[in-house]
Amino acid sequence: MKIKIPATSANLGPGFDCLGLAIALYNEVSIKPSTYQSISVKGEGEENVKLKKNNIFVSIFYDVYQELVGKKDLFRFEFHNKIPFSRGMGSSSAVIVGAIASAYEMAGVKASREIILNKALIYETHPDNIAPAVYGGFTSSIVEHGKVKTLKKELGTSLKVVMVIPDRPMSTAHSRTLLPKSYMMKNVVYNLSRASLLSAAFFSENWEYLRAASKDCMHEHRRMKQMRELFDVREIALKHGALMSTLSGSGSSFFNLVKAEEAQKVKEALQKSFEMFRVEIFELDNDGFQIVKS
Amino acid sequence: MKIKIPATSANLGPGFDCLGLAIALYNEVSIKPSTYQSISVKGEGEENVKLKKNNIFVSIFYDVYQELVGKKDLFRFEFHNKIPFSRGMGSSSAVIVGAIASAYEMAGVKASREIILNKALIYETHPDNIAPAVYGGFTSSIVEHGKVKTLKKELGTSLKVVMVIPDRPMSTAHSRTLLPKSYMMKNVVYNLSRASLLSAAFFSENWEYLRAASKDCMHEHRRMKQMRELFDVREIALKHGALMSTLSGSGSSFFNLVKAEEAQKVKEALQKSFEMFRVEIFELDNDGFQIVKS
Repeated sequence: MKIKIPATSANLGPGFDCLGLAIALYNEVSIKPSTYQSISVKGEGEENVKLKKNNIFVSIFYDVYQELVGKKDLFRFEFHNKIPFSRGMGSSSAVIVGAIASAYEMAGVKASREIILNKALIYETHPDNIAPAVYGGFTSSIVEHGKVKTLKKELGTSLKVVMVIPDRPMSTAHSRTLLPKSYMMKNVVYNLSRASLLSAAFFSENWEYLRAASKDCMHEHRRMKQMRELFDVREIALKHGALMSTLSGSGSSFFNLVKAEEAQKVKEALQKSFEMFRVEIFELDNDGFQIVKS
Repeated sequence: MKIKIPATSANLGPGFDCLGLAIALYNEVSIKPSTYQSISVKGEGEENVKLKKNNIFVSIFYDVYQELVGKKDLFRFEFHNKIPFSRGMGSSSAVIVGAIASAYEMAGVKASREIILNKALIYETHPDNIAPAVYGGFTSSIVEHGKVKTLKKELGTSLKVVMVIPDRPMSTAHSRTLLPKSYMMKNVVYNLSRASLLSAAFFSENWEYLRAASKDCMHEHRRMKQMRELFDVREIALKHGALMSTLSGSGSSFFNLVKAEEAQKVKEALQKSFEMFRVEIFELDNDGFQIVKS
């Protein structure tokens, strides 16, 4: 079988730990029964020997597979990774969602996307990346009694993403330690009202509301101070017409949503100013993970 | 001229200071030029002599009118009030919005609803009641550089409101002093994610998401402790099929959104348990204030 799982961008400014969307950039994994276990990695991570020895995808896959069929069969895993590691583009969530969905597929057990998503929540405690990796589109999620509830909005082809991918990572774990433990009421209302309006804007396709609705006062500034060029990335993206420009997850990538016809212009302006960074145009993904060959 | 302005219910659980909706219960005000100023009040507040001496509607009306025409003409104001005072049903916002909109009308100055709304923000600093009083429907609002930005969703006739209106008020000002100045991150995420999902649920008409999405951990519990019967109101409403059941604004009324065909059942269950409280079924309003006779 072969599965592809999309990259995702989470938070989207004010939507801390709850809002996200899927990007048409995929990790592909081919899995087939084998007399001994083996792994090959191409693309992102192919130079990383740890990925062969201690592979999280493989470890989650076997966990779930064994739970489903009651025994440990052996497989060959071929990874074709395109989602950059540690850049806030949901590579961990793609691994988790992909491993679980393919384990169900290989075990021959039918499972709804809701089941896959709730299984993924065991491995990643917040749903902002795993939800769009499962469903595609823009997703608004909560965790209620240990279960994820998500509403999804499909996004048309009139929008594209211009992703700025820095040459170095920002650690998610360290990034979280930068954040305060509590927030003043006025800052809570700032983010809460914007996250609500951002959901409303995506669901009603009022793109002109995205810029104001995507502002955050809880986490971005503290995180971006670790890589100050990101303030300029935002300024240039917005100046050249980006609908919104937010730190992707906990960084280091920057997510810029643009009207399709303006993507090239925004990309060129960003690439010119940040020659060291990858700047790429992507479509949005509306499907979430897909079993492309069963 | 005659203007009618709807009641509103704000917060809607997690949407502190930003979410609200309009209810088809109206204050009506007739205004006509007169050789001397006079006021009559019928309905809510008619026994309150202060409303004749120091009437906020009249005072805001003259402020705005004078600003627009540069002189103080005199008028007779006839109030037919149906929105209860100090019950969290937006009576203050109705006064503010009504006074501003009718001042523009009497001055003969055309103004968009956006202009009326932003003028209203001068008199009430958060937009959760004034936005639905202006636009009707469900509204998600932010304040950006001193201006309100609102997205509105019209709500069809498949929904109704069962309002529980206690026999005594809870003071908004006192109610706000009960709230903490800061909130832990996990509580912020709790409300922020739910407020976003609540917006998504209203905009996508996924009513079955309302119950989980309308939970709050920031303000309701502390406020409801002042009137403990409200915990039972919620329990009974949800048990009898209410889609959501939230403190209306800062109380004391309780807002229960129900499917139209279940309104009578929910009303009867609540009225039976709370004989001392008014329990009433209302339609939703999708228009906001209306000049009914110019």
